Amino acid sequence: MHNPPDTLRNDARPLPRDTALRDRARKVIPGGMWGHMDARRLPHGYPQFFAGAKGTRLRDVDGNEYVDFMCSYGPMILGYGDPDVEAAADAQRARMGIANGPGEILVELAELMVDTVPAADWALFAKNGTDATTACVTIARAHGGRRKVLVARGAYHGSAPWCTPWPAGTTAEDRAHLIYYTYNDVASLKAAAEAAGEDLAGILVSAFRHDGRVDQEMPTREFAGAARALADSHDAALILDDVRAGFRLHPGGSWEPLGVRPDLAAWSKALGNGYPIAAVTGNDRMRDAARQIFVTGSFWCGPVPMAAAAATLAKLGDGDAVAHMARMGTLLREGIQAQADALGVGLRQTGPAQLPLMLFDDDPKLERGDLFAVTALRHGVYLHPWHNMFLSAAHTEDDIEIALKATGKALEAVARAFP
Amino acid sequence: MHNPPDTLRNDARPLPRDTALRDRARKVIPGGMWGHMDARRLPHGYPQFFAGAKGTRLRDVDGNEYVDFMCSYGPMILGYGDPDVEAAADAQRARMGIANGPGEILVELAELMVDTVPAADWALFAKNGTDATTACVTIARAHGGRRKVLVARGAYHGSAPWCTPWPAGTTAEDRAHLIYYTYNDVASLKAAAEAAGEDLAGILVSAFRHDGRVDQEMPTREFAGAARALADSHDAALILDDVRAGFRLHPGGSWEPLGVRPDLAAWSKALGNGYPIAAVTGNDRMRDAARQIFVTGSFWCGPVPMAAAAATLAKLGDGDAVAHMARMGTLLREGIQAQADALGVGLRQTGPAQLPLMLFDDDPKLERGDLFAVTALRHGVYLHPWHNMFLSAAHTEDDIEIALKATGKALEAVARAFP
Repeated sequence: MHNPPDTLRNDARPLPRDTALRDRARKVIPGGMWGHMDARRLPHGYPQFFAGAKGTRLRDVDGNEYVDFMCSYGPMILGYGDPDVEAAADAQRARMGIANGPGEILVELAELMVDTVPAADWALFAKNGTDATTACVTIARAHGGRRKVLVARGAYHGSAPWCTPWPAGTTAEDRAHLIYYTYNDVASLKAAAEAAGEDLAGILVSAFRHDGRVDQEMPTREFAGAARALADSHDAALILDDVRAGFRLHPGGSWEPLGVRPDLAAWSKALGNGYPIAAVTGNDRMRDAARQIFVTGSFWCGPVPMAAAAATLAKLGDGDAVAHMARMGTLLREGIQAQADALGVGLRQTGPAQLPLMLFDDDPKLERGDLFAVTALRHGVYLHPWHNMFLSAAHTEDDIEIALKATGKALEAVARAFP
Repeated sequence: MHNPPDTLRNDARPLPRDTALRDRARKVIPGGMWGHMDARRLPHGYPQFFAGAKGTRLRDVDGNEYVDFMCSYGPMILGYGDPDVEAAADAQRARMGIANGPGEILVELAELMVDTVPAADWALFAKNGTDATTACVTIARAHGGRRKVLVARGAYHGSAPWCTPWPAGTTAEDRAHLIYYTYNDVASLKAAAEAAGEDLAGILVSAFRHDGRVDQEMPTREFAGAARALADSHDAALILDDVRAGFRLHPGGSWEPLGVRPDLAAWSKALGNGYPIAAVTGNDRMRDAARQIFVTGSFWCGPVPMAAAAATLAKLGDGDAVAHMARMGTLLREGIQAQADALGVGLRQTGPAQLPLMLFDDDPKLERGDLFAVTALRHGVYLHPWHNMFLSAAHTEDDIEIALKATGKALEAVARAFP
């Protein structure tokens, strides 16, 4: 766990109700919390527990309100409690929440995914991003019976034993057929493909390099093209992990702007604007393999998240939402850069403006980042010190203005503490 | 896929809207459907798509209504759209559907699980039963760094590569550290433990033997005791997969009546009365290991399914719901037995009355079972020809009476067709 410097401890707002809940949680949850939402990964002062969510605002259990730039780590894309999504979900729930099979909405949503995603000839639905990435790997292996899958070093593709970033409880065999390459490094990708040889089943790529704690990188055209060409020459599957970035860079898939289409893609997070759903899409070359595998879950055919997803896709539209998120993200990014330049604070803002990451120069222990984030938080803006953030279609220029007031204070604090 | 005999094709109700949806689905979903809800696993005449669910009744997209004895393969336990569960979920959703962390309901639900389950000192939550079983195996391995896990031959523990029943797309390494035993066979369990030797991490057991297409078996006290003793002597984890049976045999876990407590247990299905949620519970011996692993998902902290789960547990109560399900299941079972005896039809009803399975004697191709099930379906009762069924707390004596009218007709059809 990340230990904040003592200076931060003193400055943070007291969170008595949050503290009391953490005390209770430690008794009945190992360590008090688990996974990516564990607030011990964040500087002191961040709340663990939330009580309200509406539009772009979150309220913690102590009544503090924040303009949110994490969007629940991605799922929120139209605003918390979006009325159109909620209405679609409510209407479905009033008819049928779950049954011995899917509703008509399954077919409608699969058709909508195929219409929305140019690379997709078909779709399957699940619950977790990990379900989708794992199914993609399984389909890639079923297609042709080969085993090796190329994965970028440091990339996050879920928390199953084959991909979880922490080794505890996993075995060497869980990753026996993974071969690692470096994102955007064509030579390393080619070397990995060569090592796989005749046994190459798939090449797994993130939409862009979004590994956390390091600068983000957009894929180069050379890298994307090389991945596509290697998959083609080996009759392997190019698998796009669009779980994190999906619907924020392009409505039809994050590699559409590059002109490179995957054979399989994994989706989740923003698909249902917070309702639990994931999807695998694929092309006709992978259809038979997808038919051969057995993947399922008790709630995978639940029609309510599917209705939410269909409403989300409809409202996101043909690119207006992406353009809006890019514009808001750019306003935020340019505003922060101007503030930092005026103060002489060195920082790097990387990746797409819709999924921004900020890291400070000369900040190996993330002390500047922590101070920045926790100061912004105290001024009512929820940012993240080392994980990419998320814009949504609900963010307004007013939200950005509020954010920039907070980042101004936060950058001043950094300039004072690290002169 | 299971091919129904031609005689059944002629008798089944036409389902024009279902047929049209299947035609559309085949274009955009590999094979038209996937997983355990694929109606091609059922005889001709079963609908694939549903339009309504209320109480114990399902309505298919062609307007046919059924008294349902599958309960969505388990999740429904209080009735579809139970008003108390829906009210709790609605109230939570109005406040917050998802956020950058959990709500207070996470702590409340974990406390409730620990209060409800005598073997549990802590809980974690996820989405799929597979998430829970996989996390249990991972925790068992993290505890002590050993690798081998004993699994009953033919048991279903989910659809991840290490446990999916279909081999397509999996590799030998996915199961490199599984050692198989035969359920209820103490000698085979001991031999498996011996084969694992110093590398034994866990013993995975289903609540009872519910493998599908074969008679169900309750665990013997000898088997349960041997599993507990072997886990103890190896400092390994006894893992109870209570995903399917959980909350139907005993509110505190399906092995409570045996007096044998697991170190880890996997839950899902009925926990949220249809809302997507899964849980891992464990004892203090496994707490450190649980803290060491990284498992997570975008929606695992979603408070709405947690609110539904807390309401479900509260309404299930201390054993009244279990007793009611057992009583209704016994009424159904005894009624069917009397009908079969009167007609001289040989059948076997196995497992707990709350999760009944019926298989016919001399029925290697399940032709009798198919004819029985599809005839009952035509008379408005949704049974399953080879998978265990599910009673719920919402089933009434009227429902059983309707069911017995249908099973009477269905058994007559079997007696006529197979004299």
